[in-house]
Amino acid sequence: MDRPVSRRKVVRRSVPSRDAPERLAKKPPRARLLVDERRAQLLTLGLQLFGERSYDEVSIDELAREAQISKGLLYHYFPTKRDLYTAALRHAAQQLLDETMPPPELLPEERARRGLETYLSFAERHGPAYVALMRGGLGADPEIVRILEETRATFAQRILDALPDGIETPLVRAAVRGWIGFVEAMALDWLAHRNIERPRLLALLTALLVDAIGRAAIAV
Amino acid sequence: MDRPVSRRKVVRRSVPSRDAPERLAKKPPRARLLVDERRAQLLTLGLQLFGERSYDEVSIDELAREAQISKGLLYHYFPTKRDLYTAALRHAAQQLLDETMPPPELLPEERARRGLETYLSFAERHGPAYVALMRGGLGADPEIVRILEETRATFAQRILDALPDGIETPLVRAAVRGWIGFVEAMALDWLAHRNIERPRLLALLTALLVDAIGRAAIAV
Repeated sequence: MDRPVSRRKVVRRSVPSRDAPERLAKKPPRARLLVDERRAQLLTLGLQLFGERSYDEVSIDELAREAQISKGLLYHYFPTKRDLYTAALRHAAQQLLDETMPPPELLPEERARRGLETYLSFAERHGPAYVALMRGGLGADPEIVRILEETRATFAQRILDALPDGIETPLVRAAVRGWIGFVEAMALDWLAHRNIERPRLLALLTALLVDAIGRAAIAV
Repeated sequence: MDRPVSRRKVVRRSVPSRDAPERLAKKPPRARLLVDERRAQLLTLGLQLFGERSYDEVSIDELAREAQISKGLLYHYFPTKRDLYTAALRHAAQQLLDETMPPPELLPEERARRGLETYLSFAERHGPAYVALMRGGLGADPEIVRILEETRATFAQRILDALPDGIETPLVRAAVRGWIGFVEAMALDWLAHRNIERPRLLALLTALLVDAIGRAAIAV
């Protein structure tokens, strides 16, 4: 049923409010774009700050100050710091997946090597955030656990898709998941000690992927 | 200065209180033993309940009911559920380290295989708790992260100690840490799908430890 809209209500809605993005969202395309741009700006900022330091070291005050908006407006986009972190993490995971997609014309081993190279650069660039996240320091949030798991599953599927037909068995699948755990644990050790040159790390990880799949594929 | 103790106070102190273990602790050896026994009983119970189900599924009410003590008394031993969980986890980690210590007279590869066998049984026995813990589902508690890291470091050191002299390099150390990540990731996949026979998993993991160390040791 259409209810008549009073003049007063219309006027109220048209009053610009910095703190009400959900109202802006009902405005014409230009206003909506501003909302999307603001959201994108906050995600980029979150990615930068959470990437440089750990979750606990970044405050809502700092996020609002850096974005040059009020805390009230920040809370309208992301009701909690955890929400902003989770959105930034999903953004980062997608970026990582995009960047690690190597040219399809390369041989599988070379594709793996290139993907790994990008992965390690990414881990290095986001050092403290990567370490905090992988050490499980962010906790009981099922959304964060889900983003991590989906990212690992996508990596695993890419590797499996590149294998010759008929090789994939439950053991091969598990070996690929195991290898991803190997990469994460080794990357953490590398970031903690910084005493291994990256090419040697890359060569070892690539060779072990071949070992793991090869051994799993021929296992009786 | 010795202050005279009123008769009334003495009487109060001697009233048995179920809810004051710190007073029991000042009593003669037999009473202290009761405190230690109670603590041990709670740890064993915590290990059992947190091992069967995930952290969130176990309540303080249930813990107190199963231990047949009041919630007040439970809180005296462990001020929060997290405290009991952390203590039970440290207990479990020590148990795991003790159980996975293979006879020193065995060859390194056989020792690794035996240790792995025990590790997988342990992960299987504490299925849901193992999965929740390894997936980082317990969060920002630095104490929990520390227990996990110390356990991994002890496993890594045992493996390194068994290597011939002169083989250990930063890359070999990192490879061993990577392999532990491989074991954890593969154990999680195994527990999730249950479609791999344990001997095949064991054989693959043992072979890959040799591969990882071998490749890291000969890398230029």
